[in-house]
Amino acid sequence: MSLDFQALQARLVHLRENKIFETFVILVILVSALVIGAKTYAISPAALNMLKVLDIAVTAIFLFEIVIRMLAEKNLFRFFSKAWNVFDFIIVMASVLPIENGEAAMLGRLLRIFRVLRLISIIPELRVLLAAFVTAIPRMGYVSLLMFIFFYIYAAMGSIFFANINPVLWENISISMLTLFRIATFEDWTDVMYETMEVYPLSWLFYLSFIFIVAFVFLNMMIGIVLETLQTEHQKNDRENGEGEAGEVHIIEARTREMDQRLIKIEGMLEKISKN
Amino acid sequence: MSLDFQALQARLVHLRENKIFETFVILVILVSALVIGAKTYAISPAALNMLKVLDIAVTAIFLFEIVIRMLAEKNLFRFFSKAWNVFDFIIVMASVLPIENGEAAMLGRLLRIFRVLRLISIIPELRVLLAAFVTAIPRMGYVSLLMFIFFYIYAAMGSIFFANINPVLWENISISMLTLFRIATFEDWTDVMYETMEVYPLSWLFYLSFIFIVAFVFLNMMIGIVLETLQTEHQKNDRENGEGEAGEVHIIEARTREMDQRLIKIEGMLEKISKN
Amino acid sequence: MSLDFQALQARLVHLRENKIFETFVILVILVSALVIGAKTYAISPAALNMLKVLDIAVTAIFLFEIVIRMLAEKNLFRFFSKAWNVFDFIIVMASVLPIENGEAAMLGRLLRIFRVLRLISIIPELRVLLAAFVTAIPRMGYVSLLMFIFFYIYAAMGSIFFANINPVLWENISISMLTLFRIATFEDWTDVMYETMEVYPLSWLFYLSFIFIVAFVFLNMMIGIVLETLQTEHQKNDRENGEGEAGEVHIIEARTREMDQRLIKIEGMLEKISKN
Amino acid sequence: MSLDFQALQARLVHLRENKIFETFVILVILVSALVIGAKTYAISPAALNMLKVLDIAVTAIFLFEIVIRMLAEKNLFRFFSKAWNVFDFIIVMASVLPIENGEAAMLGRLLRIFRVLRLISIIPELRVLLAAFVTAIPRMGYVSLLMFIFFYIYAAMGSIFFANINPVLWENISISMLTLFRIATFEDWTDVMYETMEVYPLSWLFYLSFIFIVAFVFLNMMIGIVLETLQTEHQKNDRENGEGEAGEVHIIEARTREMDQRLIKIEGMLEKISKN
Repeated sequence: MSLDFQALQARLVHLRENKIFETFVILVILVSALVIGAKTYAISPAALNMLKVLDIAVTAIFLFEIVIRMLAEKNLFRFFSKAWNVFDFIIVMASVLPIENGEAAMLGRLLRIFRVLRLISIIPELRVLLAAFVTAIPRMGYVSLLMFIFFYIYAAMGSIFFANINPVLWENISISMLTLFRIATFEDWTDVMYETMEVYPLSWLFYLSFIFIVAFVFLNMMIGIVLETLQTEHQKNDRENGEGEAGEVHIIEARTREMDQRLIKIEGMLEKISKN
Repeated sequence: MSLDFQALQARLVHLRENKIFETFVILVILVSALVIGAKTYAISPAALNMLKVLDIAVTAIFLFEIVIRMLAEKNLFRFFSKAWNVFDFIIVMASVLPIENGEAAMLGRLLRIFRVLRLISIIPELRVLLAAFVTAIPRMGYVSLLMFIFFYIYAAMGSIFFANINPVLWENISISMLTLFRIATFEDWTDVMYETMEVYPLSWLFYLSFIFIVAFVFLNMMIGIVLETLQTEHQKNDRENGEGEAGEVHIIEARTREMDQRLIKIEGMLEKISKN
Repeated sequence: MSLDFQALQARLVHLRENKIFETFVILVILVSALVIGAKTYAISPAALNMLKVLDIAVTAIFLFEIVIRMLAEKNLFRFFSKAWNVFDFIIVMASVLPIENGEAAMLGRLLRIFRVLRLISIIPELRVLLAAFVTAIPRMGYVSLLMFIFFYIYAAMGSIFFANINPVLWENISISMLTLFRIATFEDWTDVMYETMEVYPLSWLFYLSFIFIVAFVFLNMMIGIVLETLQTEHQKNDRENGEGEAGEVHIIEARTREMDQRLIKIEGMLEKISKN
Repeated sequence: MSLDFQALQARLVHLRENKIFETFVILVILVSALVIGAKTYAISPAALNMLKVLDIAVTAIFLFEIVIRMLAEKNLFRFFSKAWNVFDFIIVMASVLPIENGEAAMLGRLLRIFRVLRLISIIPELRVLLAAFVTAIPRMGYVSLLMFIFFYIYAAMGSIFFANINPVLWENISISMLTLFRIATFEDWTDVMYETMEVYPLSWLFYLSFIFIVAFVFLNMMIGIVLETLQTEHQKNDRENGEGEAGEVHIIEARTREMDQRLIKIEGMLEKISKN
């Protein structure tokens, strides 16, 4: 029986690595995405029924595929040690939950939407892209914290001075932070400013200083992180392939090391000759 | 007769390469552009008639020029093997189509507008620029796909939760995607948010997370692609001309290779000497 | 007694460098920030009283901590020679001022907000970030001056020509500069333009030229400064660690210097040999 | 008498290069700027009179200064061969023109505003900055032309299809181009789109494609030019000072050339030795 299982497993691994099977799964994900989209239109009950059948079919295929991938692995621990497997498992399981009536139905539909994310986990290029974004997050940490501190201070000032002028925008610190985010996107910020300038004529200082700080910090964060990540990866790639400037420098580095060894040897030989 | 044709062809090649002829074609394109622009003004019937005559003249010259270029080529297959020739041929042919009355008249005018694009195909510098943009498109592919996935998921969520609040903005997934594009450009996005926050007070999370993801991905895409394309071309240019840092590194790479050969030779000679 | 003081001082230095003490101070700053935030909500008198007690406690702890740090230093001059100490001292002292009634109460609350800034002075990573921003300021100096000159000229023109059209936006040069800043952020700038175009149909030239100049200068300033600062620091870091392209170039530089010495020595030896 | 003139000229050169004189001129420019600004406020007749006197004084000093600089030069041709001198001369002369009444008075005030630009010509750092911007203009040429072509085509399409929907925005090709510029800055562009979508439901394609092309081309232009200019200058500076990576590469380039010469010499010596 153990042999039977091993034979089955070998077959499953074979199936998992099959290009046609992978393409089929991508197609199922796309169908799943289209079903989600179609449901947002006003459609006839007949079409809705068809969508429900399709939905069940998609769920079944997803379950089937994840079970195959779990069995194809030597053991479950190894399966769950890969982040993308955990990602897929949670998405598939979340959409299996039998919630179809009342309030919960909405949650059910919401969870099904995340199936589209499986496109990212199945296409290697998208996986690389998302991984790059995720690795950039910690670098953004301290800059985000610094920005949050500035937002907090300005929001506290805003709610102290402007709460009586317009409670909708400045009632308390959290509402003020939302208003400040709006100002940071330049969305109708002058309306907000002109309103408070009638009471405090110098309040333009509050808005202009905020815009300068946030625009500067924010641009810094964005461009800085993008540039560093890009250049580091680009150079690493070039060096490994010996292409471009970074590649040539890498080649020169290795060659001069070799040349140095040769010179030491030549020196030694010459010393021996001159002694004779 | 074959000789006659060859003589004619030689003359046509001569004409095609003539600087005055090229300048004349550029002038005709500019006239064509001005005719298009002039037609959008309320003008007297007399002027309109003159524009029609000019239009026919431009079409005739364009036809004449493309025929010359086709005959100047050894065979038609070689003519159509160049992308820019195909580009010109389609533009000229599209504006020849005899559609002048009713609904089709508008299409006729529309097709004539694209004649302005011939400016790009005739000015080499613009051709290089457009080619650079076209080569950047495939790099944008996967980032665009990733962005589309996020748009799709947010649009599905938006139409599920907000369709009853404002059908004009969130009725179905395609309308929701247009609304999200609007939010991505920061265009009156707070109005959209405040409307849904009255029903779902936490919906600001939806908008803020969307803005962060899209702004980050979008900036990444734009700046990243521009930078990589620019730097790669810049370095390549520098290396070929031996200018700048990249050029010097290229020279050093070649020189150290040569020096290494010399050292090996010296080593060999010394070994021979020390053996004697 | 001098010995007693020295023993106390040693203990205080020990306390100041204690990790638990530092974490405690960070917690107190966070509590202080939460107190500031909580006060902006409509809360019960009981809660308000508790906040007042907390506020006094925070002030006391801050005072206690700054006194410890002052005593731990050899002398007061050395304490105030560090910019961050001065920064902390001003923040703590400002919030101690006993202003609690009437108009001044608002100022008291305002000064307490700045306590949140102590988060920056206590977390080393944030200190580095802020220092980087501060060092970038002088570089921005001349670009800002250039931008200010353009703002001033456009504002003068605006108030001369448009003051009679809309005094709210163009009454005098300072109001005009605020309006121009609004235009620079693209905030409802077309409304401003359409208004003046009714009187001066060519005034779109004023707006478009302004947007081009400011957008170009501003982008230049922002991106240029960020890039230069980032790259310089990145390269410096790489060179010191011998990592990346800059690091390899640094290694090559040192190695070729050594190789050159070796070659001179070899040359000398050979000359001696050939003379014999 | 010729000697007298030479002695005077030597004195004038001395005066022109005098630091105090330069500072005095800067102060006069600032006073001139303040006069311009002050005139935009509603001020008392007495103050206005004082401003007029100041204005005349500033004009006189400017005239005096430019005459000094002209006399200090060997001949007038040499004076006008420097672009900044021409720049100053035009600004000073323009504000001397005796136009003070009626319509022309406004022009007179306008011309006086440009005196503030003399700040740029007198402060060397600002001169360098502006020169950098000017040198970047030709690089922007072809990209601007490409962008103009896209604007023209979209404007022609817009005025053909949308002129009947809203003549205020799309009446003819020039008004359409202004509307498109507004869309490129994201200013209330959805209002424009929703209006045309009622007649042509697919017209969102027009707007979205336009935004993508323009945003891409525009960002390309801006960032690309800034980056290239900055990096080229930065590298050039580093190489000349032997600082940074580019500086080290430059040093290595020179050193390896020298090492290569040494190796050739060593080779020659060894060949001679081995022959003996």
